[in-house]
Amino acid sequence: MSPELHSDIDVLAPLLGTWEGSGTGEYPTIDDFSYLETITFSHVGKPFVAYSQRTKHPDTGAPMHAETGYLRVPRLGSIEIVMAQPTGLAEIYEGAVVGGDVPLVIDVRSTSIGATSSAKEVTITERTISVTGDQLSYTFRMAAVGQPLLHHLSATLRRT
Amino acid sequence: MSPELHSDIDVLAPLLGTWEGSGTGEYPTIDDFSYLETITFSHVGKPFVAYSQRTKHPDTGAPMHAETGYLRVPRLGSIEIVMAQPTGLAEIYEGAVVGGDVPLVIDVRSTSIGATSSAKEVTITERTISVTGDQLSYTFRMAAVGQPLLHHLSATLRRT
Repeated sequence: MSPELHSDIDVLAPLLGTWEGSGTGEYPTIDDFSYLETITFSHVGKPFVAYSQRTKHPDTGAPMHAETGYLRVPRLGSIEIVMAQPTGLAEIYEGAVVGGDVPLVIDVRSTSIGATSSAKEVTITERTISVTGDQLSYTFRMAAVGQPLLHHLSATLRRT
Repeated sequence: MSPELHSDIDVLAPLLGTWEGSGTGEYPTIDDFSYLETITFSHVGKPFVAYSQRTKHPDTGAPMHAETGYLRVPRLGSIEIVMAQPTGLAEIYEGAVVGGDVPLVIDVRSTSIGATSSAKEVTITERTISVTGDQLSYTFRMAAVGQPLLHHLSATLRRT
């Protein structure tokens, strides 16, 4: 039995579920690449949405990236995202969320990026996530390893 | 088919699986409490262990806390933990891991605690996790909301 969605996160309802699709990545320091991705957004009745995703190689199926975290809506129109990455990064994002009768759009920028001693340097990250019906798209920009803020990832997924 | 464990994280093999048990919490600013807990540690063949846990109220079954993240072993004897909490915290921990023929013991302290604008202030966190056979125990200490570093949580779980 699924609990009722907490009213604080009503605006995030279109995210809930499991999504599958594909994306591409680029950055000046690496070769272009593509990936298959599965994303899950879920809730337990409390005022946050749990997020996890995994990507795999489109040819070999080998696991590539993973990340996990939570989304909060501290007040109408605002969103906070807390994210852990196995690359050794723990990120805080803050920004805006619009939804309701229009497509859901989340637009956030890092306010804090914690890093383990062995992690690569990442100084700024930005994410834009949009949901229209059964389609979810996102873009990811970052300033890392001495590069300025640049487009890194974009993907489109369908609700499963 | 389960992939082979990456050799970097051999020492963490005793963690892998799902654990269930109970714990108790205390802090000067709140009433004592107890909880039931489920923890999962998993891997995909890459050099990190994925971690997630949920606690629920022992009487009502209502969801209480949750957290999720990753463990890395950058070099023999060292461990890094990256953690996201729905309370708005993104933590980096570093410390020591010992294992092999003896019980596994992980002892870490926060090196970075990122917080969203709406999160409560937490300045230091420490965790000790030990595994002996099918029993996992942990303690959690924190300095938060103006209090010094104090014991907050302890729990014991069994492998399911």
